[in-house]
Amino acid sequence: MTETLDIHPPAAVVEWVGDHKRGFLRLLDQTRLPNEEAYLDCKDAQAVWNAIRRLVVRGAPAIGVAAGYGMVVAAQWVPDGADFMTGLEAAAEYLESSRPTAVNLSWAARRVLARSQRTISNDCDDIREVMLDEARAIHEEDKRLCMAIGLHAAELITEHAGVLTHCNAGALATAGIGTATAGMYVAHARGRRFTVYCDETRPLLQGSRLTAWELARAGIDATVITDNMAAQVMREGRVGLVIVGADRIAANGDAANKIGTYGVAILAARHGIPFYVAAPYSTFDMNLPSGDSIPIEQRGSEEITEGFGRRTAPEGIQTYAPAFDVTPAELIRGIITDRGVIEPVTVENVQAMIGA
Amino acid sequence: MTETLDIHPPAAVVEWVGDHKRGFLRLLDQTRLPNEEAYLDCKDAQAVWNAIRRLVVRGAPAIGVAAGYGMVVAAQWVPDGADFMTGLEAAAEYLESSRPTAVNLSWAARRVLARSQRTISNDCDDIREVMLDEARAIHEEDKRLCMAIGLHAAELITEHAGVLTHCNAGALATAGIGTATAGMYVAHARGRRFTVYCDETRPLLQGSRLTAWELARAGIDATVITDNMAAQVMREGRVGLVIVGADRIAANGDAANKIGTYGVAILAARHGIPFYVAAPYSTFDMNLPSGDSIPIEQRGSEEITEGFGRRTAPEGIQTYAPAFDVTPAELIRGIITDRGVIEPVTVENVQAMIGA
Repeated sequence: MTETLDIHPPAAVVEWVGDHKRGFLRLLDQTRLPNEEAYLDCKDAQAVWNAIRRLVVRGAPAIGVAAGYGMVVAAQWVPDGADFMTGLEAAAEYLESSRPTAVNLSWAARRVLARSQRTISNDCDDIREVMLDEARAIHEEDKRLCMAIGLHAAELITEHAGVLTHCNAGALATAGIGTATAGMYVAHARGRRFTVYCDETRPLLQGSRLTAWELARAGIDATVITDNMAAQVMREGRVGLVIVGADRIAANGDAANKIGTYGVAILAARHGIPFYVAAPYSTFDMNLPSGDSIPIEQRGSEEITEGFGRRTAPEGIQTYAPAFDVTPAELIRGIITDRGVIEPVTVENVQAMIGA
Repeated sequence: MTETLDIHPPAAVVEWVGDHKRGFLRLLDQTRLPNEEAYLDCKDAQAVWNAIRRLVVRGAPAIGVAAGYGMVVAAQWVPDGADFMTGLEAAAEYLESSRPTAVNLSWAARRVLARSQRTISNDCDDIREVMLDEARAIHEEDKRLCMAIGLHAAELITEHAGVLTHCNAGALATAGIGTATAGMYVAHARGRRFTVYCDETRPLLQGSRLTAWELARAGIDATVITDNMAAQVMREGRVGLVIVGADRIAANGDAANKIGTYGVAILAARHGIPFYVAAPYSTFDMNLPSGDSIPIEQRGSEEITEGFGRRTAPEGIQTYAPAFDVTPAELIRGIITDRGVIEPVTVENVQAMIGA
């Protein structure tokens, strides 16, 4: 049986414009959503670094795609000559330093770097060309991975289901139809009716600004709640399923994701609601035995104290601002990957699906 | 042993200015904190109703004190004559309709009304005078209740403790030193060092705008976190104790409080952290056998989508906005009342402490 699913992502999140010599990376500026749909062109490594740091592009897979193209942008500025490869290595390290938690960032930068290192040519432009080819491959692969995740995840979304998600692991976080949202897009394309509760996701409100925006644009029934309403919404029986994304998953299935995800997992467990993580194979970091050693980015206090444009906390107040948390595998019913669903989440099952 | 505790509330939250004939209710306008310390004078019933509705004054005990004085303000506008008592009854009903969840509102309005009904006089000004006397009694009693709660609660705050609280059940929510914060003020006055984690408490940010403001002003170490960071902060071992307030407590100990409280209770249970509710006897509604029948106020979607001046969700998006939730007694380690601590929280223990 062949199924034709005509699903278009809501916007061009990350794009390469032009060729390997003078082309550049074009990003949807997600800091300006939902009020404005603006694009930012990145033409040197620093512009890419800034865009990732400022969350113009965010979401582990999209950051990966951007970093792949970012390596090509960087390569345009590395002078031809004996130091070319050294320059590329430095650029990869530089781009990796823009954000610490998502594994896709260094995974993609390293993949493009490795391709350059395998290329035997004295013409640096040849190398730049294969780098763009590799970056495009990462981009195309990400689209395929999203769709593959979506086909598995859609099976979990029943008619009239209530699905809760946290942050944005949506189309805006990838080059395709998202990870956590992939099943929603597929189920919607198949005519299924369901409601998505979007945690607004403080401090940067990716849930209300981004997830609600892209789902509403696609015609999917979406309702925004503040993060602290999730428990009550669950208690009222409105949620039958939680699906979130991940920024890095350890070999035992512990999953780092946006701050608050761990709390949602605890609430879901309390209410007997299955909690799923959706992520491609590239999000797994099999070198990490558990989530304990996943680095957790701390972000600036102004995101808490002035997050809405107006000061909402007293001058000089202390804040504590972890940007991610780690949900232990025991709270995760299953991990929906492009290769299938890991369920239950055990070291053995992760190993069997993802490999070393 | 006598202990002298010199504790001053951070601001005049609710005050009566003048006499029963021409006096009025003066409220600290909490919607303008932390940026501005402004006061609002309420000189008719509608002004009081609006102030309670708009959260100029908020927090169950402070609303109660305001409603008591509000009855005096209303009585000034009820014409002398045979319909005087009918006018007062209508005013009580009107004030009660401003917000549905906090029991103190109707408790205080009814208490002042009952005092007027017990007063035998043909001179309506005599009645207005005893009403003011009763409203002042509620006000003074609230201060005493806060201090009594504080003396019990301070025992729970150990040296270098991390205490997490949600919303503002602080001095700003009462006429005294607060309910959830009362023990903090007492422990601080006794020279104990500890840190308070303030959940910012979306959508209206009472934690970051109000609790952090009043604690910092009193010199208590306060740190603001977003609501969804609580689980991670607990996991890192930073929190040894949770104390929150309540808007209404049923006879079995189920406690209604600001949305998100129930979630915090679940997170605390998961991390083995004792979760306490602090509230005076007047917050108990012994007519309610359980929390299931506590009415839950739903608030407007603009508090979520345009909380602080800037639109943070797409136009036309759906929201769901319960303002309160109910924490079941089984998740509450103890209820700290002015009369002592109810622990464990059982129907029998509530009955023994609070009575019918």
